[in-house]
Order: sequence, then C-alpha cells, then structure tokens
Amino acid sequence: MTYPQPDPAQVSATLDALRSATPLVHCITNIVVAGFTANVLLALEASPAMVENDHEAADFAGAADALLVNLGTLSDERTRACRAAAAAAHAAGTPWVLDPVAVGPLAYRTELATDLLASRPTVIRGNASEVLSLAGASGAGRGVDSTASPQAALETARDLAHRTGAVVAVSGAVDVITDGDTVVEVHTGHPLMTRVTGVGCALGAVVAACCAVTPSALDAAVGATSLLTVAAERAAAESRGPGSFAVALLDELAALDAAALRAAVR
Amino acid sequence: MTYPQPDPAQVSATLDALRSATPLVHCITNIVVAGFTANVLLALEASPAMVENDHEAADFAGAADALLVNLGTLSDERTRACRAAAAAAHAAGTPWVLDPVAVGPLAYRTELATDLLASRPTVIRGNASEVLSLAGASGAGRGVDSTASPQAALETARDLAHRTGAVVAVSGAVDVITDGDTVVEVHTGHPLMTRVTGVGCALGAVVAACCAVTPSALDAAVGATSLLTVAAERAAAESRGPGSFAVALLDELAALDAAALRAAVR
Amino acid sequence: MTYPQPDPAQVSATLDALRSATPLVHCITNIVVAGFTANVLLALEASPAMVENDHEAADFAGAADALLVNLGTLSDERTRACRAAAAAAHAAGTPWVLDPVAVGPLAYRTELATDLLASRPTVIRGNASEVLSLAGASGAGRGVDSTASPQAALETARDLAHRTGAVVAVSGAVDVITDGDTVVEVHTGHPLMTRVTGVGCALGAVVAACCAVTPSALDAAVGATSLLTVAAERAAAESRGPGSFAVALLDELAALDAAALRAAVR
Repeated sequence: MTYPQPDPAQVSATLDALRSATPLVHCITNIVVAGFTANVLLALEASPAMVENDHEAADFAGAADALLVNLGTLSDERTRACRAAAAAAHAAGTPWVLDPVAVGPLAYRTELATDLLASRPTVIRGNASEVLSLAGASGAGRGVDSTASPQAALETARDLAHRTGAVVAVSGAVDVITDGDTVVEVHTGHPLMTRVTGVGCALGAVVAACCAVTPSALDAAVGATSLLTVAAERAAAESRGPGSFAVALLDELAALDAAALRAAVR
Repeated sequence: MTYPQPDPAQVSATLDALRSATPLVHCITNIVVAGFTANVLLALEASPAMVENDHEAADFAGAADALLVNLGTLSDERTRACRAAAAAAHAAGTPWVLDPVAVGPLAYRTELATDLLASRPTVIRGNASEVLSLAGASGAGRGVDSTASPQAALETARDLAHRTGAVVAVSGAVDVITDGDTVVEVHTGHPLMTRVTGVGCALGAVVAACCAVTPSALDAAVGATSLLTVAAERAAAESRGPGSFAVALLDELAALDAAALRAAVR
Repeated sequence: MTYPQPDPAQVSATLDALRSATPLVHCITNIVVAGFTANVLLALEASPAMVENDHEAADFAGAADALLVNLGTLSDERTRACRAAAAAAHAAGTPWVLDPVAVGPLAYRTELATDLLASRPTVIRGNASEVLSLAGASGAGRGVDSTASPQAALETARDLAHRTGAVVAVSGAVDVITDGDTVVEVHTGHPLMTRVTGVGCALGAVVAACCAVTPSALDAAVGATSLLTVAAERAAAESRGPGSFAVALLDELAALDAAALRAAVR
C-alpha cells in the first residue's frame, strides 16, 4: 500500500516561515550531535539554544518557541532536565519533540521515555525499533540501529499516535509520518544519511523548529523531514564520501528554495 | 563616533607569538562547541585541553598558560569547576577569559557569572546583550541571540571594565573592545560567522590563548578578534554556505600570515 | 633498531571484517571528540553508541561487541560509568580499549586509569607520555601533549603489556605497538593528524572496533592504526589545511580498499 506524499508548496511555505520567524529552539540533546544539530538549525535560520541543567531547563522551555528532548547520552542531571523541560513545555503550550534514542534495549531510558509521554509530546520522532519499543511492542533494536522498517512499524505508530495525541514520525529509507489517521510517506533521502552521526537527531530538532511556525504538527513533521532529506539528496550528489556529505548538507539546507523543493519533494 | 582600529603589525606579532609559544589553554566550555573550539586553537597552533570536573579543574588552571570559562551547557559539576578554576587562575596569575553565554534571561548562570567577577577575569567576551546583562543593565537578549549592537553597549562595557579591571570585548557586526579607557573597533568579519555554531565561543578561547603570549590584555583581545575575523572573511570568499565556511575557517586560520593580515586588518 | 611493519593483507582483511560485521562499539568518551569519533566509526561501517551513565553503562558494555573507555572530560558520573563498563566488559569477555587521556599530570584520572587496569583492558592506546605515566614511570607530559617519542617509551610499554596482559599501542610520528613480546612499527601518518582534535581518540575507537572482528589484539591494534594513518596520508594529499583534512579523512576512510592499503601500508 502507498500513502500520500508531501505537498511541495506546503514544504516551501514551512521553509519560508522558518526563515522569517527564526524560532528559538530549546534543545536537550546529546554530546555526540549537539554541534551538528545546532549547525543544522542555523543553516535553516532557526536559533538553537542548548540548556540542559535542571536549574534552567523548565524556565527556558516555557520561554522558547519549541523544545527538543533527545535521550542520547543521558546523565542524572540531563534526565532531570528532560523531565522538567517537558512538563514546562506542556504547561506553557510550547510544542515539543521527543526523540527516544536507543529506547528498548536500555531499561533506564525506556522508563524515562514512557514517563515523558505524560507531558504529551507534539511529535515523537525515532527509527522503527525505537517507536516499536516505546509503544511497548516487541521488535527492539540493538542500540541506535534500527532493525525494522518504518512500514513494518506503521500500525504500531498509528496506535501510539492515537494513544498519546502525538504525531509519530518513523525514519528510514522511506519515512512514515502519521497523526494516527492520516499517513504521509516521504520518499526523499540518501543512504549517506546513515553514515554521518546526528542526521536523525538533527531531524528531531528541525521538526521542533517547524512546529513553532506551523499550526499542524503533521505538516511540521512532514515539512521538516522533506527539507532535510531533499537537502541530503542534493548534498550526496556533490559529495565524495560521508565527510564531504555532512559539510554539503549544511550548505544545501541554507540554499534550499521553492524551485529545489518543487523539483524534488516526493 | 569612530575609534581606532587594530594595528596589523601588532596582530601579526600576536600570531607569531602564538605559533612559537603554543600555549596550553585550559577550556571549560560547552558540549555544543567543544570540538570546534579545540580545532580553532589547534589551527593556530595553540594547545587546547578541556578539563571540567572539580577534582582537576583548579590544579589544571594553575598549571595552564591561560583559561577559558564559557557558561554554555552548565551542569552542577561544570559550575563547580568554573568556580574552582577561575579562583585558581586568579591565585596563580593565569590569565583567564569569561564568556557569559546567555547571561541575562537565565538567573542561575547570571548569578554564577556575577560571582566569577570576584576572580577578576582578564577579559570578558560576549555579545552586547550578554555584556549589558552582566553589567546589571537592562537590555537582556533572548537566549544566545544578541538584540543590541556592540556600539549601544559601549558605555556599559567601559563601566564594566573600570569596575572589574577586565578588558571587555563585545562581539557583533563591528566588534568593540575596551579596557575602560582605550576603545578599539574591529571592522573585519562576515555574516556567515553567525550561521555556524561556536564561532563566538571559539573567539573566547583564542582571546585566552593570546593573553598567554601578549602582555597587554587589550592587545590580546584585539589580536584574537582580528585573527578570527580576517580568517572568516577569507573563508567566506571561498565558501558555498555555512558548512563549507566552517571548514574553510579552520584552513584559513592555519594559513594566516603577515601579508594577509596587512591587507585585511581594519 | 627497527621492527617489523604491518602486513597489508592482514590490514585489508581487518577492513573487510569490519565492513561485513559492522560491530557495535560502546564508546565512553569525551565531549570534545564524541561526534568525530562516531563519524570515524561510521565511515568504516562500524556502529557507534555512546552510553555513559552508570544506570546503563554496565548492561550495554556486556551486550556490545567492543568497548572504548576514554578518560577525557571526566565527570563523576562518567567516571562511575567507566568503572562499571570496564568491569562488565571484563566479566562478559567483551574486548575493550583504555585510552588514558592526559594521565600523569592529573592525579584524579591517573588513579582511575590505574584502577581500570584491574579490569584487564584488551588494548591500551595513548601517546608516549600517557603510557609512561600509566606505567608509573617518569616522563609525564603536560596535559594531552606528548613530550616523549613512542620509541623512547617502548621498553616501558613492553613492561606494561607484560604486567597487564594488554597490547600497548603508543601513538606518535611512528606508532609502536606491542604485546610485550612482538613489536610492530607503523610508519604511515601525517603531521596534520595533530592539528585536528580527536584523531588519537578516534583511533582508540577504531582499535576497539577491530578487536571485535580480529582474534588477535595485536593485529587489531596494528590494523586500526594502519587504516587511520593510511587514510590520513591520502586525506592530507588533497587538503588545504586542518579543516579540509578532517573532512577528507572521513571520505578516505570510507573509500579505503585493498589496493590503497597494498600501496601504502608500511
């Protein structure tokens, strides 16, 4: 079965909104990808701010335009900040994205991710294994690898969306994004995205940024995924390998325009 | 009103001194920019070392040639290390730079930054909002964005310099640097510097490195700012976007020479 | 005196084994190099996972194919994770690599590194100063600089290998690697490797990955060192400075093949 694909005009409108609003995106993320995540947001003219201690996280989440909670490289203090920031975002109506990195094989973060659902994330973004694990289904992967396809996780993703009220975005060769009712498939992307650390994590941050400028969380998740994967296709075409790909991805994100999106979005 | 600009011969002498002394720069900085900061220092042949736990920070600050205390991504332990390292640097006569990242809207780090002034930083480097906030003036920005110009912060910066004994370096389209009496404007730079994370944070580290090899803190701050902004201009001329700019910036820092500085410093 | 050099066919076999097994490498490393380390592993088709809290580290080390324990940017929590993960790896028979960053001048981490020897690292990888310090000899460096040559540390490295059962890999202009009896010298490499942060730290991770796919720890350490240094030579030939070198290094790691290794390994 196939599902609708993104609307290039909608993706283009999301990009324009990002660039005119320059939303402040509060990121609680991990030591591996923090710099790359910030650079991806800056390339799209969003404004990243990493605040991850529990003295400041709640206040900042309430003041920011969007929040990302990414569970990589947890520490006790970062864990408390995740809880406080998610609760504050929920209370303030700040849209927020949960990226349940490596949930499943690791009980500590699986419990944390499950608890965070009570703060009603706007979007849950993960690979198929992470989404299956978070939903309590079997199919857990090994660490951050995904051993299931997004398509295989679709019914579980729909259930998770219905149960939590979140849009669920499952990343893979073809991304599957659903609010529980509508399903959108994003066919753009390139295998080099899996050879550079942080592309998936950065996608979570871009989804958060788009949530700040787009009324529909589904449109935000689809738009963010399209922006990153279209830029990735263009970057791959001019790269010699994963090193030059990561550099070109930032250049291409900054250079995206309506014509490029019209030609590529699918 | 306009102020004196940097002396190319002085900047060139600072670069030569960096390369011959290869100063050991103890950096307490944040998870977003730690790697880029180290690479900027290495490109200039300084020797970075990130030591940020409170078991080691004081001893290391006393032994290093210079110290950077950057308040991004604070944790309880990093906060204790900032306090211990600044106090030890002050006691040992090690020059040190305070970068009050996002001070103003966040009370926890504003209190920390204010306390750190008691350890008499050699240089305070921030954007206009951060400097205004640290000085207790109004004008606080939103997170790490600066919503005021360095020129608008000049009188506050002069007062802060007089009150603390620090050189105050305010970054922006035109950088303004003052010891309270003398004011120097640095006109080099490029807007792409704001589209890559960590350029301002790395500048703080370069200022620290220059303090280790230059008797005058004012010359050190002016020299560091000129080195980074001249390299940025040269990098921007050969970049396709923010990704290739960040790469070229490191190449250009390593390639800087007296002729390049003579042609560009202003 | 000269020693045997790596066998290109053996290095090539190690590369093939990495790419077919895609080992999961649990990395406890530092905030400066975590992203680069992950990208180096991904370029070689290994699968990095950074898990550094003490709730998860022991379980994950038991399940991973190899473990890296790198002592840069220690925190109390990361220190507990290092101890727990090393013990769990030892108990489970997971090969693991100790990178004693800056051991010597800093007492806290020197004690930690010494304690970790009880968990019997498979390989110890450091520069000459770190290896000398860990072995309790004099010759400690200043921070992460190495002030001694690998050749000068050879006898100490042999003793350390005999005493701990670990292969000891001493990095420098010529790398020296020994299991206490056999000594191999690796002559490939380029000075630009010292102008980019994290190349040595990433080597520790590659050694861990190779330990997962090679029965002999000596072959794993020699193979990993050859892979990274041959890629570095090829990257340097096409670089303009340290920025473009770091990018090209990832591209060249991904592009390595038997012919390239046959031509370059020495």
